[in-house]
Amino acid sequence: MKRILLVVAYDGTNYHGWQFQDNAIAVEQVLTEACKDLFQEEIVLIGASRTDTGVHAMGNVAVFDTDTRIPAEKICYALNQRLPEDIRIQRSFEVPDSFHPRYTKTEKIYEYTIENKKICLPTNRLYSYFVYQQLDIEAMQRAAAYFVGEHDFQSFCAAGSQVKSTVRSIYSMEVEEMGDLVKIRVRGNGFLYNMVRILAGTLIEVGKGRIKPGHMNEIIKSKDRSQAGPTAPAHGLSLIEIKYEELSELPNG
Amino acid sequence: MKRILLVVAYDGTNYHGWQFQDNAIAVEQVLTEACKDLFQEEIVLIGASRTDTGVHAMGNVAVFDTDTRIPAEKICYALNQRLPEDIRIQRSFEVPDSFHPRYTKTEKIYEYTIENKKICLPTNRLYSYFVYQQLDIEAMQRAAAYFVGEHDFQSFCAAGSQVKSTVRSIYSMEVEEMGDLVKIRVRGNGFLYNMVRILAGTLIEVGKGRIKPGHMNEIIKSKDRSQAGPTAPAHGLSLIEIKYEELSELPNG
Repeated sequence: MKRILLVVAYDGTNYHGWQFQDNAIAVEQVLTEACKDLFQEEIVLIGASRTDTGVHAMGNVAVFDTDTRIPAEKICYALNQRLPEDIRIQRSFEVPDSFHPRYTKTEKIYEYTIENKKICLPTNRLYSYFVYQQLDIEAMQRAAAYFVGEHDFQSFCAAGSQVKSTVRSIYSMEVEEMGDLVKIRVRGNGFLYNMVRILAGTLIEVGKGRIKPGHMNEIIKSKDRSQAGPTAPAHGLSLIEIKYEELSELPNG
Repeated sequence: MKRILLVVAYDGTNYHGWQFQDNAIAVEQVLTEACKDLFQEEIVLIGASRTDTGVHAMGNVAVFDTDTRIPAEKICYALNQRLPEDIRIQRSFEVPDSFHPRYTKTEKIYEYTIENKKICLPTNRLYSYFVYQQLDIEAMQRAAAYFVGEHDFQSFCAAGSQVKSTVRSIYSMEVEEMGDLVKIRVRGNGFLYNMVRILAGTLIEVGKGRIKPGHMNEIIKSKDRSQAGPTAPAHGLSLIEIKYEELSELPNG
């Protein structure tokens, strides 16, 4: 028996998120079926991040145990032949039996993409959130800086979420203009439910001039969800990468 | 009666190209219906470029005549409310009655996008052609330089095409690497049927090492379609812009 790690990329457009659902198709379900078909055994996936309906991923992570003799590095190719084209395993390799993708110290990188022009381009519509009001990028950059560091992010957590602690560390948060696209890239040790989308929604309000950048500290301190901006739509969000310190010796590209 | 020019962007994924078809949906048809619905008159569109099934556009051009009192610059917004989200009019303005988008001196810009990595990213699949063999970009750049200038491009024209002359001028042709994407950008005074896709397919053969860059002259001189590379798939191609010299005084952004 060995434990295999998969780096999973998907276009979230047609999925009800990562996690198994009763009445809708989730990525976890499609991937589990592909694994069962390939290995001809019962497979239980443990996913690192339960992305929401419509959210994309370039590097979500899942592990499972198997008796297969297929070399770990070849598993990604064999699985891809059994997966629909909107899910692609980027890499596969063996990890220690004890490795758990959620209970292991980690760094996650998310990117939120905004298309900012008067009329949207159809070829951008699936992977970016369209905002026609001209955004003040410099103000968004100033606001983003307030989030870096360890903070209680309760104001940026969807109501009803049950977590022990709402304290998280953001290592960096950058707002970059690339032509008509604005990319918000955030790195941290973990994110609360909807946190990246609420951070993005708040920065968009700043970009529109509706909230001042200097007001970010007050929003954080209020621990009140209603003080932050709206939750930006799922289709602008992509989980870029999950890094595990203890796996740093393992191949990653 | 006035003549209106539309700059038309579309995601070609779900369309059988620009031009009206009997048994399939084309962009021209959907746009004509939206115009009829808005103006409540018979509308005949004249398109600049009959893009193929699956080809995308950021800036195709179409004109039509109308008696409407809607200000020309506002027509794009009114039409977009009546169009599906994979078609978006980027701009609308009045042009001289005599202006014809196909019989007017023009410069066209196309871009062909290749995703070049071992395993494709699902979020790139609709707008780029996936090639897993590592491409020699420098060789592709050297090959591209041979096409610049006025040449008889018969070797790069789909068989069966009926045109008077196969001579065309390419003003520039650049191959650029952007992370895992390779973009071939070509500017010219016009392109033969499938020409950009055959040029791209030929450069990809060069990138794979199957044709030498220095062989381009011989392929051009042969005037033989079978000497060039295969026609690269439609979904990697996008019509970026059509420029009209005589409209240079008109707003264009």
